[in-house]
Amino acid sequence: MAEGAGRKGDGRIACIVQYDGSGFNGWQIQAHGRSVQGEIEGAVRVLTRETVRVVASGRTDAGVHSLGQVIHFDLARDIPLQKICIGLNGILPPDISIRNAYRVEDSFHARFDAVEREYRYYIFNYPQRTPFMRYRAMWMREQVDVEYLRQAAAHIIGEFDFSSFCKKSEIHGKNPVRRLTDIRIARMDELIEIRVVGNAFLHHMVRIIVGTMVEMSRGGEEPSRIRDILEQRDRDFSGITAPPYGLYLYRVAYDPPLDSRESAF
Amino acid sequence: MAEGAGRKGDGRIACIVQYDGSGFNGWQIQAHGRSVQGEIEGAVRVLTRETVRVVASGRTDAGVHSLGQVIHFDLARDIPLQKICIGLNGILPPDISIRNAYRVEDSFHARFDAVEREYRYYIFNYPQRTPFMRYRAMWMREQVDVEYLRQAAAHIIGEFDFSSFCKKSEIHGKNPVRRLTDIRIARMDELIEIRVVGNAFLHHMVRIIVGTMVEMSRGGEEPSRIRDILEQRDRDFSGITAPPYGLYLYRVAYDPPLDSRESAF
Repeated sequence: MAEGAGRKGDGRIACIVQYDGSGFNGWQIQAHGRSVQGEIEGAVRVLTRETVRVVASGRTDAGVHSLGQVIHFDLARDIPLQKICIGLNGILPPDISIRNAYRVEDSFHARFDAVEREYRYYIFNYPQRTPFMRYRAMWMREQVDVEYLRQAAAHIIGEFDFSSFCKKSEIHGKNPVRRLTDIRIARMDELIEIRVVGNAFLHHMVRIIVGTMVEMSRGGEEPSRIRDILEQRDRDFSGITAPPYGLYLYRVAYDPPLDSRESAF
Repeated sequence: MAEGAGRKGDGRIACIVQYDGSGFNGWQIQAHGRSVQGEIEGAVRVLTRETVRVVASGRTDAGVHSLGQVIHFDLARDIPLQKICIGLNGILPPDISIRNAYRVEDSFHARFDAVEREYRYYIFNYPQRTPFMRYRAMWMREQVDVEYLRQAAAHIIGEFDFSSFCKKSEIHGKNPVRRLTDIRIARMDELIEIRVVGNAFLHHMVRIIVGTMVEMSRGGEEPSRIRDILEQRDRDFSGITAPPYGLYLYRVAYDPPLDSRESAF
């Protein structure tokens, strides 16, 4: 059974993974410190006695959270999906959980096959900080003008070279064009939620967009000025990188959707 | 100014305090471990150089959170309310915050003057745990019947001897009659919110009510059975004490309300 399963092509597993990023040095295995990838690969090894390589839809930086990260890995043995899901949750530390597991075709790739990604950024907007939002949202004392943020966001929806909103050291030689399809901003009492949807994102892209919009709103600039910043294609023209702990990878979409496959739950 | 303020009767300060209970041994100063009271008394001493006794509307147990605990203390020096609020937040650790500060009359007492208290209990109801609800809600895998909880709760609204819902060692010699005025239960996706309002609460009362209702719903008993348990006036007849980390002291009300006084914000 162990040798057959891999060849028959039913050995690739995809999972939806949630993690509280505050206790990790990020997704990727590092020389020092905890990584989400390292914890998951370790848990798979304990559960299955197989050494696997876990591939994510995208790396998240230190402190960034996930509500819907998608991963894949290959198992030689044929293990029921419920057992994978429940088993991994029994082994994983409390700041990571597997939300669901799917049996996918061997050609499925968590990163290359993703057709859409949604991030959410949270701002806690109140004169005093609250213990419940530390490591969970960016705190801003002064009243944030949500309508201003909406107006600014509208100017960068579309397919553009987003070099102005990418970590400077990372852009050289890469294709900086991304398609931003939607930015929705809502206030829920003291919490501002910024939903950002696109086909893919450059490194720090959501955090620089949020940081730039917020800085602009405080400076009283025309919302359309963000389009000028975009057209400069140069990180020097945009604003601060908003802190990682306000950012959540919320959803990764595939075509056909993951939900069309056999799942644990 | 320093000597006059205390005598003029403008020296008593009330504050609304939020804390994440997971890092504390509870409200009250203990021989060992961190207490919320200890941290606040220490912060007041650093800010004002005065040694004060901080009185709360009620003690909360280890792990129990606060969104609206009310405290009072007396200062000899006349310090602006904004300075108290902002100053304490600058000194307090990140798991405690002062939400607002009020100048109250010398006779105001955070505990004895409270006319109503509201607690909220959260159940995370999903087959898999999530990192974002650890230390924040009780996790229940199996689908909880919210309508059943509502029906059971209706049977204990009113003024009763709540001995069946009080920590056993604490009831002797005390008046066990409390007035429960409202229990509202709502499902918000995977989160179940139980709002409990009353004039005052016995030790562990909300947690035993929640634990008993949830146990009953799983056992398939008639919801009205909770009234029989109540009438036994004996802790042996009720169910488990739900874990502390799902419980939040949400609001404490006074007459006249705190908001009718001069406030920092």
